[in-house]
Amino acid sequence: MSASAPHAPRATSGGSVLPPWVKQGGRAILAPLIRLAIALHLTPNSITVIGLTITVIAAILIASDVLLVGAVILTFGSILDAVDGGLARAQGATTPFGAFFDSTLDRSGEAILFIGVGAWLLRTQPDPLLPMLALMVAMGGSLLVSYAHARAQGIGLAAEVGLAPRTERLVLMIVGVALAGFGLTAGLIGVLVILAVLTVITVIQRIWHVWRLSQAVDIVANKEN
Amino acid sequence: MSASAPHAPRATSGGSVLPPWVKQGGRAILAPLIRLAIALHLTPNSITVIGLTITVIAAILIASDVLLVGAVILTFGSILDAVDGGLARAQGATTPFGAFFDSTLDRSGEAILFIGVGAWLLRTQPDPLLPMLALMVAMGGSLLVSYAHARAQGIGLAAEVGLAPRTERLVLMIVGVALAGFGLTAGLIGVLVILAVLTVITVIQRIWHVWRLSQAVDIVANKEN
Repeated sequence: MSASAPHAPRATSGGSVLPPWVKQGGRAILAPLIRLAIALHLTPNSITVIGLTITVIAAILIASDVLLVGAVILTFGSILDAVDGGLARAQGATTPFGAFFDSTLDRSGEAILFIGVGAWLLRTQPDPLLPMLALMVAMGGSLLVSYAHARAQGIGLAAEVGLAPRTERLVLMIVGVALAGFGLTAGLIGVLVILAVLTVITVIQRIWHVWRLSQAVDIVANKEN
Repeated sequence: MSASAPHAPRATSGGSVLPPWVKQGGRAILAPLIRLAIALHLTPNSITVIGLTITVIAAILIASDVLLVGAVILTFGSILDAVDGGLARAQGATTPFGAFFDSTLDRSGEAILFIGVGAWLLRTQPDPLLPMLALMVAMGGSLLVSYAHARAQGIGLAAEVGLAPRTERLVLMIVGVALAGFGLTAGLIGVLVILAVLTVITVIQRIWHVWRLSQAVDIVANKEN
């Protein structure tokens, strides 16, 4: 909820629903993985592709009712999500294309995960209407949260505010899939409802934030409108 | 499929699946609507909100099995989509926030339309698994096509290539809903399958296009990566 200045650092968790130790734990796992990637001569872009492939495998497993293994593989894929950017920074090899490629494939992975969970709901739930409505709102909301951020960047403004950035959404999804794997389908449906509400609120927060920034910052009119 | 240069005009239909007369017809309807909006003292941003509201009403009608009226209202909402930008340009009142607001609400409307069609499929189809899979891929693909464009813009590159930009997607959806309204559910499912295939291809086209542009254009490394 806190208003971050333009070009505020990405790692800020102001207003996030995740406790700080989750992110600290993630960073502690990251360092040895980046060293391993360097030792294996992997490029950041190839790690991006490996990360998406792992997410696709997890989505297929989830759709096939292999939920707990899917959740574990998804966790690994999500950690790998951060390795590409970390590796690029460690090697001083960050490129605009790499940033674009990483962002676009990460969101593709997120969409594929929602489709996998949706397929599981459609195959296993006797009346999937309400869970699927929550899932579609959560999927649309998640991609719109990212869209609003990217579109704001296009007009030179930072819109990294809100309750449900991507890391938070992924952690919630992994928890939901794991709960369903332990037989608590209501837990997964609850996560989808929470994600639906949080992502819609986040889209509104980002529009509101860009509105306030655009009032404050004098920027050159965007050519394309 | 044609490679457009950075900042190529938006109206280019190179490689689009829509014949040129559809777009020309749309522009012919636009001029009197823009004059009406000026007479009514409507601002571009208020028209953006009205357009989203109309799309929400159409989505609710479609979900409620009122398909033909939904398709007609959707057509009107889609035309209104273009009025806000046209009005802003006619008044010389284009703003970066207006461009961001219009883009973000247009994509929200598209997501809401997919959710309305999905609700209809879930409520009326005895086995909605395959149509819903096509719908989820088409919905994710559509939003990722727009995301790839916005993200490329953020690194200073134009990614307006591909078979399925938003106008084309909307026309196909209206046709699909109308076909289902005439009892041809297979027509709507066919449209969803076509949209699923076209949007996935378009995402790949845009990634490939940005890759080639980034090789050709010397651009300053993006701060945020």
